[in-house]
Amino acid sequence: MVQWVYCFGGTRNEGRAEMRNLLGGKGANLAEMASIGLPVPAGFTITTEVCTAYYKNACAYPDDLKAQVENALRHIEQAIGMGFGDKKNPLLVSVRSGARVSMPGMMDTVLNLGLNDETVEGLANSSGDPRFAWDSYRRFIQMYGSVVMGVPHHRFEDILEEAKHALRVQDDTEITAEQLRVLVKDYRALVLGETGKEFPTDPHVQLWGAIGAVFGSWMNPRASTYRKLHDIPAEWGTAVSVQAMVFGNMGDDCATGVCFTRDPSTGENVFYGEYLVNAQGEDVVAGIRTPQPMAIARAEDGQKPMETVLPEAYAELSRIRSLLEGHYRDMQDIEFTVQKNVLYILQTRSGKRTAAAALKVAIDMAHEGLITQEEAILRVPPSSLNQLLHPALDPKAERTQLARGLPASPGAAAGAIVFTAEDVETHAARDEDVILVRIETSPEDVHGMHAAKGVLTTRGGMTSHAAVVARGMGRVCVAGAGGIQVDYKAKTVTAGGHVLKEGDWITLDGGTGSVYLGRVATIPPVLSGDFATLMGWADDARRLRVRANAETIADAETALSFGAEGIGLARTEHMFFAPERIGHVRQMIMTENPALRARAIEALQQFQRDDFIGLFRTMAGLPVTIRLLDPPLHEFLPHGENELADVAAALGENIEVLRARRDALSESNPMLGHRGCRLGITAPEIYAMQVRAIAQAAIRAAEIVGKPIVPEIMIPLVATEEELKRTRAAAEETIKAVIAEEGVELKYDIGTMIELPRAALTAEHIAHEADFFSFGTNDLTQTTLGLSRDDAASFLPLYVEKGILPRDPFVSIDQEGVGALVRMGVTKGRTTRPGMKMGICGEHGGDPDSIAFFESIGLDYVSCSPFRVPVARLAAAQAALQKREKTIA
Amino acid sequence: MVQWVYCFGGTRNEGRAEMRNLLGGKGANLAEMASIGLPVPAGFTITTEVCTAYYKNACAYPDDLKAQVENALRHIEQAIGMGFGDKKNPLLVSVRSGARVSMPGMMDTVLNLGLNDETVEGLANSSGDPRFAWDSYRRFIQMYGSVVMGVPHHRFEDILEEAKHALRVQDDTEITAEQLRVLVKDYRALVLGETGKEFPTDPHVQLWGAIGAVFGSWMNPRASTYRKLHDIPAEWGTAVSVQAMVFGNMGDDCATGVCFTRDPSTGENVFYGEYLVNAQGEDVVAGIRTPQPMAIARAEDGQKPMETVLPEAYAELSRIRSLLEGHYRDMQDIEFTVQKNVLYILQTRSGKRTAAAALKVAIDMAHEGLITQEEAILRVPPSSLNQLLHPALDPKAERTQLARGLPASPGAAAGAIVFTAEDVETHAARDEDVILVRIETSPEDVHGMHAAKGVLTTRGGMTSHAAVVARGMGRVCVAGAGGIQVDYKAKTVTAGGHVLKEGDWITLDGGTGSVYLGRVATIPPVLSGDFATLMGWADDARRLRVRANAETIADAETALSFGAEGIGLARTEHMFFAPERIGHVRQMIMTENPALRARAIEALQQFQRDDFIGLFRTMAGLPVTIRLLDPPLHEFLPHGENELADVAAALGENIEVLRARRDALSESNPMLGHRGCRLGITAPEIYAMQVRAIAQAAIRAAEIVGKPIVPEIMIPLVATEEELKRTRAAAEETIKAVIAEEGVELKYDIGTMIELPRAALTAEHIAHEADFFSFGTNDLTQTTLGLSRDDAASFLPLYVEKGILPRDPFVSIDQEGVGALVRMGVTKGRTTRPGMKMGICGEHGGDPDSIAFFESIGLDYVSCSPFRVPVARLAAAQAALQKREKTIA
Repeated sequence: MVQWVYCFGGTRNEGRAEMRNLLGGKGANLAEMASIGLPVPAGFTITTEVCTAYYKNACAYPDDLKAQVENALRHIEQAIGMGFGDKKNPLLVSVRSGARVSMPGMMDTVLNLGLNDETVEGLANSSGDPRFAWDSYRRFIQMYGSVVMGVPHHRFEDILEEAKHALRVQDDTEITAEQLRVLVKDYRALVLGETGKEFPTDPHVQLWGAIGAVFGSWMNPRASTYRKLHDIPAEWGTAVSVQAMVFGNMGDDCATGVCFTRDPSTGENVFYGEYLVNAQGEDVVAGIRTPQPMAIARAEDGQKPMETVLPEAYAELSRIRSLLEGHYRDMQDIEFTVQKNVLYILQTRSGKRTAAAALKVAIDMAHEGLITQEEAILRVPPSSLNQLLHPALDPKAERTQLARGLPASPGAAAGAIVFTAEDVETHAARDEDVILVRIETSPEDVHGMHAAKGVLTTRGGMTSHAAVVARGMGRVCVAGAGGIQVDYKAKTVTAGGHVLKEGDWITLDGGTGSVYLGRVATIPPVLSGDFATLMGWADDARRLRVRANAETIADAETALSFGAEGIGLARTEHMFFAPERIGHVRQMIMTENPALRARAIEALQQFQRDDFIGLFRTMAGLPVTIRLLDPPLHEFLPHGENELADVAAALGENIEVLRARRDALSESNPMLGHRGCRLGITAPEIYAMQVRAIAQAAIRAAEIVGKPIVPEIMIPLVATEEELKRTRAAAEETIKAVIAEEGVELKYDIGTMIELPRAALTAEHIAHEADFFSFGTNDLTQTTLGLSRDDAASFLPLYVEKGILPRDPFVSIDQEGVGALVRMGVTKGRTTRPGMKMGICGEHGGDPDSIAFFESIGLDYVSCSPFRVPVARLAAAQAALQKREKTIA
Repeated sequence: MVQWVYCFGGTRNEGRAEMRNLLGGKGANLAEMASIGLPVPAGFTITTEVCTAYYKNACAYPDDLKAQVENALRHIEQAIGMGFGDKKNPLLVSVRSGARVSMPGMMDTVLNLGLNDETVEGLANSSGDPRFAWDSYRRFIQMYGSVVMGVPHHRFEDILEEAKHALRVQDDTEITAEQLRVLVKDYRALVLGETGKEFPTDPHVQLWGAIGAVFGSWMNPRASTYRKLHDIPAEWGTAVSVQAMVFGNMGDDCATGVCFTRDPSTGENVFYGEYLVNAQGEDVVAGIRTPQPMAIARAEDGQKPMETVLPEAYAELSRIRSLLEGHYRDMQDIEFTVQKNVLYILQTRSGKRTAAAALKVAIDMAHEGLITQEEAILRVPPSSLNQLLHPALDPKAERTQLARGLPASPGAAAGAIVFTAEDVETHAARDEDVILVRIETSPEDVHGMHAAKGVLTTRGGMTSHAAVVARGMGRVCVAGAGGIQVDYKAKTVTAGGHVLKEGDWITLDGGTGSVYLGRVATIPPVLSGDFATLMGWADDARRLRVRANAETIADAETALSFGAEGIGLARTEHMFFAPERIGHVRQMIMTENPALRARAIEALQQFQRDDFIGLFRTMAGLPVTIRLLDPPLHEFLPHGENELADVAAALGENIEVLRARRDALSESNPMLGHRGCRLGITAPEIYAMQVRAIAQAAIRAAEIVGKPIVPEIMIPLVATEEELKRTRAAAEETIKAVIAEEGVELKYDIGTMIELPRAALTAEHIAHEADFFSFGTNDLTQTTLGLSRDDAASFLPLYVEKGILPRDPFVSIDQEGVGALVRMGVTKGRTTRPGMKMGICGEHGGDPDSIAFFESIGLDYVSCSPFRVPVARLAAAQAALQKREKTIA
């Protein structure tokens, strides 16, 4: 005889957690809860094999199913002490579908099955609440009528609305038991009218109707389409779980509540939760009555903790609390009901928690021996560290959302609106908090971004200039908030019907991308000892090194404080915009007089040498990768007439000649233009100046810190071996000259960015000339997908929303496309140069999923913004552990 | 005994053509010429093994070398009837180096070796020209002194200059024999002073000095570097060839000349060439005396053909002419000298020829049975067909070059300068020839480009808009002529010191990129029957199909006339710019009112349907691939205020609103922007309109031509399978609706461009949704190399010039990078869909080298501009034949 039905709860538990294929997800969960000794309301599960047999056999059940179900029903009656259809003490059940995987489109749940004109009176008596009983009955008819019998849901709603109108009441709760009785009659009349059938009064008939509806829904069009889309075979079938309903509102020996095995907001190891005596589950949530605390220790004056009111049930719950943590080895969220002093557990699952709680629970559990150190590492979502590292909005603060953009750089900040970098500095000098609002930012805004509390742009994506720079300096940033109109001339911001002026306050939440009206209170970050513990464990577990992208001493110090093991990307061009330098940069670009050009370059070399000495000193021997000039020259050009006039005066040249030269430097697609090593080849004096500055700085800094310094010089935008060969040869010549001048030894590495598809495709050739590779996955994403990060805002959000792309490829690396090229670059590069040092310095270096990918393909390090270093350390540890697990399995 | 020396010429020929490794390139060539019975001046070659032994043995020669050389010298003396060092009848020799491969950096040649104070008199007597004898002696000392003895070359030049100054003569030829005699003394004194050694007078000492210098030069730094760069092993060594000098200036029974076995400018099968009695080779070239014709048939009145003057030598030469063609199986270029009635062949090689001659010679030789049909196909360089298909500059016409740009579209054209498309049309309407001069062109200039004779731009590369469009319509184009300044306001063109105004004439040579002042005469193309014969043979030999890129009926007809087998790319956006359409396009883009947008789309659909009917009718059942809208919408936007006002009026909208919308559509990097299928997804109504027009047109055209038409709909800029899946599904829905409306059947293919690296990398997925692939190698080159074709002019020419890139990758596909992606796309796509139809529609479709690559990776077709179709047919045939050869070998 085939066993079609598996009981659970009470004294008879026939299923196990592993029987998911047979019992469905819900059935297996219930069996697992019962099997570890939780008092779940008794019930049974009809297996998925019944579903398969049903469809094989022209929608007929196996012969012996009926008998097995009846038998199982009796098991429930015995366990719960009630009778199915019993007028005095009626057993009610829920009927739920449950396939192997959760699947929309199928019938979900019918509650309170077993109610009819007679059992409803029994429920009224036992609960002492006729209104509740009749309301349950009304709801049951509505649910069963629509889900099982196919009466449109809105027809029931129409009747209810009419009744309320006639009774002149606003709210369902104002309808009395007597009035509900009438409504039930109307409902049943509706069912008869719509279907030509009486609403079934026999609970057994009701039950078989619900079971049939579950199996029927397996083949409905919505479920079939979903299966097709997700490659779920129809043969899997669905199971049906039938379970006793229990009620927390049958007297003062009844209660209902929700609790957590630990405090989900702090992670503290205390029993945390709320309950209500003589109430239904929804009352706890609805907030009509004030829920009471669980433990005496947590009760304030006048509160009635469950520990006092229902000591037996509380004791049982306390027992279950440690049982659960012992079994699931995690903090659990529990829904329970006490019915006539008997505790029932309705549901338990891993509890949602704040970032702080996740950290504390993981560390505590490891200390308690409940989980291993490795498991603790895996328990904390790396991205949640952002909440710990940055100020957050006070969850209690009132707020009015103005608009929403991209969560470009985490943290929360409030300030007065200003529109220019200059204005930011003016206000910041007066210690006023300001938010810089721009359509988009450019390198000239960097000093303003630094002085602002936060940055808001209306255009650009997650790797737009604003986003990258803000993350780099740890400033809050919301980018690409397209719903906001900025009018620079009128100095206004228009959004959501509000028109804000310069000086009006707004608040940014860089973690969600929300922009709020006015000043919303924020709370500062607090880093606990647990944070340091976790980081230490992560460092033990990870293989990937973590460096930071930094140019300034301040950023380098931040990076070090967050545990960076070097600098993976110092963007020399960021050093060009300081007011005392940009003039020289412009003169260098704009003049055609060799002497004037040499003068400008000489001036810049002094600055750059000092910059690099500062960086090398700060990093004190840790590796520092300096990228030579990368962006197109036109980024540095004078924009306005005044700036142009300044340059003309400095050079003693005609302003019209300079204007023409400026125009000649403009490009249709600057991202694909005259930049990177192409500049190094056409204007070799610029790279020579930078390399000279690096070599001199390394020698000088080594003397100061008393350790050898091996600078890593990185040549950007290489597409061919020949480009690297020539720029490398030129750099080596310069370094040799410096060594000869200074009369000391200097070791150095010269490597390249792999940021063009061609570089990855021909990495075995390029590796001949490179001591190391650093994958520039921002640019590689742009070229591989043909996607400008500055322009993608017009369609990329739609792509992600519609599922055309799983995620923004500038946030998390596109493993199939861009990732394939990175993998190719690694493999080919190491074919030529085994064990070659390889890292990644794009924005993906701070993204946990991307880091897992980089671990899997064997990179040596990732480099990210200083503020993302802890995230990267943790993600790298998780990736290493997961890889180890996979290797073992 | 090892044979170190191999003789040739006279009666003793010991080498063979295949002994290149032993005899070096030059030695093997001389041996080959001698071995087929050509009267080469006798000589011998010292093998490369001597060089190797020399270096192995601390720079000492093998013991028996001296004896073998002396022996060989005697062979020369006997063959030529002169004595080495003989005072009366002195034998002079040349000494040349010759490695397996030609190699710069080594000693090249010493001529007239054997001269000294005594033999020079013998030469003076036998030539009857003491000046010649002493000048030869002077030159010998200079050559030997610098090359063998290491005296700086300029020191000899200084003495010569001083002498001329003292003698008050301008030209070397004015120095008399007596004066030369003094100069020789001075030269020898210089050698003694510089080297401390007397200039050797013993011819044997001279000879060994020269041999030693050749071997010594094998290891000099320049040669070593060259070998290192080109992976040539030092062990290969060099050979030394020593050969008798013969003189055509020793009397009236002497002569010298150059001839071709056929006419190198027409290809006609007549003996063609020039000679001079009693002259040196350089006299023929120098033009002081007028060379005479070879054959009586070619002689005009008063000329003295060789056939009459030196009948014996002429008869011998005629014999050799057919001997040579029989042996080398190609038209040969011959250098000869007659010394005392004895004919000597100095050199023979395949003769350079015009495109017309190449064609005629190949076809004739095949008809004569000298070569096979396949060889004939391989003999004509495909790119030379451009000369036959387009007007060319009259080679006799005088010309002044103004500037030089890129040879963007072949042919020659002269016309008056105009600056706007509108002005072109005004002049063209009056039948005036004009050249459109622009900094760069945009789609709005297309109608003007069509009406102009040629197009000149100062910016942009080989695949800039101007270049691509001009090639497509067969207009002459010189692009990216950076040396020209265009001032639209002043309506002037400044170049090379000239300032030209509107209306001034210029002439373009699109085959070389030259721009000439004024009107240079051109000659029209003439297509011979041989052209058709060659094309027919090529069609038999090729596997690749050849389609054309065309949108208009006129272009399609041109394509058909040139033998196109279908349309591989019809760019629908080119159809949007006609004056009666662009308004609707702008309204469609600019309005946000759905009704107005629908109205504009409806209007465009009528136009597009008619366009497609025209194309389908013209191609009459041949495949036609229509690409849906590709460029970013902003390309169609109104630029000026008037245009903006027009759109505002048509839409009844505020001009400020429209201006804002226009600005919002502008992009930082439009090439990587909101275009292609991204538009199809965000604005589906545009693709729906186009697909509907295609389906309706295919049905209508099929009725007209009476054949089924299977349109190929191509979706551009696909990066992910999901994009194609959705756009394909939408297109199929539209087609189904049309089929239902029309009540007829319609077959269709829906495919995609593979033009982004990601598409190639994930082609196995994309192939699930594509009936065919067309590789868009223009865009693929831009993204793979990160190179904007519009901006590359600022460094790409330098890259090619410096050898960083072997060729412009927009002209000839970058096989290593872009080619790797195409190969990957082919392989992966056919893994999913075996035998999938694949082609290429980038500009590389007309480039012979690229076509060879496409043949090698198994594409089905190439598609190129109509005017390049013959080039592609021939290149495809050559590629197929070469592949076959490789397979056999």
